[in-house]
Amino acid sequence: MNPLILITNDDSVSAKGLQVLIEAVREYGDIVVMSTELNASGKSHALTTNQPLRVRKVRTEKGLEIYACNGTPVDCVKLAEAFFCDRRPSLVLSGINHGSNASINVIYSGTMGAVVEAAINGMPAVGFSLLNHDVDADFSGCIPFIKTIVEEVLKNGLPERISLNVNIPNLPYNKIKGIRVCRESKAYWADSYEKRTDPNGKDYYWLTGNFVCTDKEEDTDIWALDNGYVSVVPTQADYTALDNLETMKNIFK
Amino acid sequence: MNPLILITNDDSVSAKGLQVLIEAVREYGDIVVMSTELNASGKSHALTTNQPLRVRKVRTEKGLEIYACNGTPVDCVKLAEAFFCDRRPSLVLSGINHGSNASINVIYSGTMGAVVEAAINGMPAVGFSLLNHDVDADFSGCIPFIKTIVEEVLKNGLPERISLNVNIPNLPYNKIKGIRVCRESKAYWADSYEKRTDPNGKDYYWLTGNFVCTDKEEDTDIWALDNGYVSVVPTQADYTALDNLETMKNIFK
Repeated sequence: MNPLILITNDDSVSAKGLQVLIEAVREYGDIVVMSTELNASGKSHALTTNQPLRVRKVRTEKGLEIYACNGTPVDCVKLAEAFFCDRRPSLVLSGINHGSNASINVIYSGTMGAVVEAAINGMPAVGFSLLNHDVDADFSGCIPFIKTIVEEVLKNGLPERISLNVNIPNLPYNKIKGIRVCRESKAYWADSYEKRTDPNGKDYYWLTGNFVCTDKEEDTDIWALDNGYVSVVPTQADYTALDNLETMKNIFK
Repeated sequence: MNPLILITNDDSVSAKGLQVLIEAVREYGDIVVMSTELNASGKSHALTTNQPLRVRKVRTEKGLEIYACNGTPVDCVKLAEAFFCDRRPSLVLSGINHGSNASINVIYSGTMGAVVEAAINGMPAVGFSLLNHDVDADFSGCIPFIKTIVEEVLKNGLPERISLNVNIPNLPYNKIKGIRVCRESKAYWADSYEKRTDPNGKDYYWLTGNFVCTDKEEDTDIWALDNGYVSVVPTQADYTALDNLETMKNIFK
């Protein structure tokens, strides 16, 4: 039986990046897509807890079923695996995201929320992002790297609860230098809201902000991307700060 | 000048746990509360990216200002720090959550999303959760532990980008054995949706699920809570699976 590949994203079912990803991996197995109906960027690992989920069938053909869901990317993975996959997916993919999910962006990312959720549930999972937010972005440089990584993971799997966060520079394929495995850079978003006043005199606030990253060592994803490499960060979801356990034990005795 | 303490939660501005937390820490400084207008459980680290935020003043008195925001807990922390704090908060607190945020729950938790966001932005931060979902839960057993932890963190701070995830067993104070610093148990939620049919014959899905945890070693939060201790997990937001970097480097050469 063909491998089953479950695909989701956070840019909505109509996003170009999702269509490109589907076409890039169709040759490797049967595909079930459960995407978000609307843009779900920034949804992180959010779950829909207080309202029911609905699923719309978008299109089905031999070896490909596409659905859209009113929930978050994490909901998409859980619901698709529970009700829309006739067997356990061999691989869960998310993306191709329109925009970077490198460094601290991983924690806000709906694309990567889906990937991490799949890994928590024991499925090999990879998120792909291109460093270009344009709806019409050119994803052609991504495709050979996607094929390389998908072939590897389908063949050998990934360690338990580990997924991959793959970011791809916004360059033509022949300008990309290769793949670098790296750690995520430490960074944060500063100056994060703009205050405005509406026509009724009431204040409102728009999310904005600047990416602040001083951690650009050669072993980081930001360095890799700045230098023309595809960054691959092995990713896990355990928040324990292991290096700080002993210090804290001495404080709270 | 008094320390400034910023407080948020994910159970809404009217939740009992929030009121208890405010009263428990008023003696330590000036308080700004920016809570979610509505229940935001399960919002994780989600940001509001595509709509403006509104803030409602709920109540102000000497040394205490309470606001509610239509965003997520992460939005609450970022927006409060940007526009509603007259100086840098010495401490950010979240909770007291109605229900556990131990183990893998930390990644779904809006309460902990706020805490981790504060830490990313360089502020010491602690999340408190009681293992009782009841709106009328008895939080009295929590208060002495909250005071101990808040006093310690106000005095000595926390390491850079490290926050604390504090869970408290649902017991009277005199039955709680003390504080244990621990790591989060590995776990996941299984059987996660229930399928129903609406009166129009269309399917919908409700989130449900069972907490599956086989990792109950003595150094875990689940063990601590099962055995009557308050669990304190030092928490960080870097998703890099450091143990897997070398393995992956050998694969993607």
